[in-house]
Amino acid sequence: MTKFMDVHHGMKGITSDQFLAAHRADLAVEGDEGVHFEQAWADPDSGTVWCLSEGPSAEAVQRTHERAGHTADEIYPVSLMLS
Amino acid sequence: MTKFMDVHHGMKGITSDQFLAAHRADLAVEGDEGVHFEQAWADPDSGTVWCLSEGPSAEAVQRTHERAGHTADEIYPVSLMLS
Repeated sequence: MTKFMDVHHGMKGITSDQFLAAHRADLAVEGDEGVHFEQAWADPDSGTVWCLSEGPSAEAVQRTHERAGHTADEIYPVSLMLS
Repeated sequence: MTKFMDVHHGMKGITSDQFLAAHRADLAVEGDEGVHFEQAWADPDSGTVWCLSEGPSAEAVQRTHERAGHTADEIYPVSLMLS
């Protein structure tokens, strides 16, 4: 399993309710792809959303997002992390 | 206090040791600006690094990164977050 950071652009003005609904849509289908979305952040002013997930491949992360109705614009494997 | 996601490009090939050293350099000076770097992720293949912080302003986050020797290319306030 690999961690991934993905980025969505064009989400200007996204509300807290829309953000939560989108995240729940991911969680509802992620199991089919062996993916888990762990954290997500949004900046409504620039319209940028970041999602941190764990899964078998970037393709599996993208398929999960597609099925949830919001394709990611960029997906990066993150092999280094600190907290 | 606001949460911020910042992005650094051009870090292709960053090693685990370099990543840890950069993060520790942030932690060493962040207090002067009232900033705290909470999490960080890196993709050495694309050369992208993301840092999640909390602080009084984007300028304070940037000053911390500058003093630590690695200016951020993008800084976004993240008013929405889920985990």
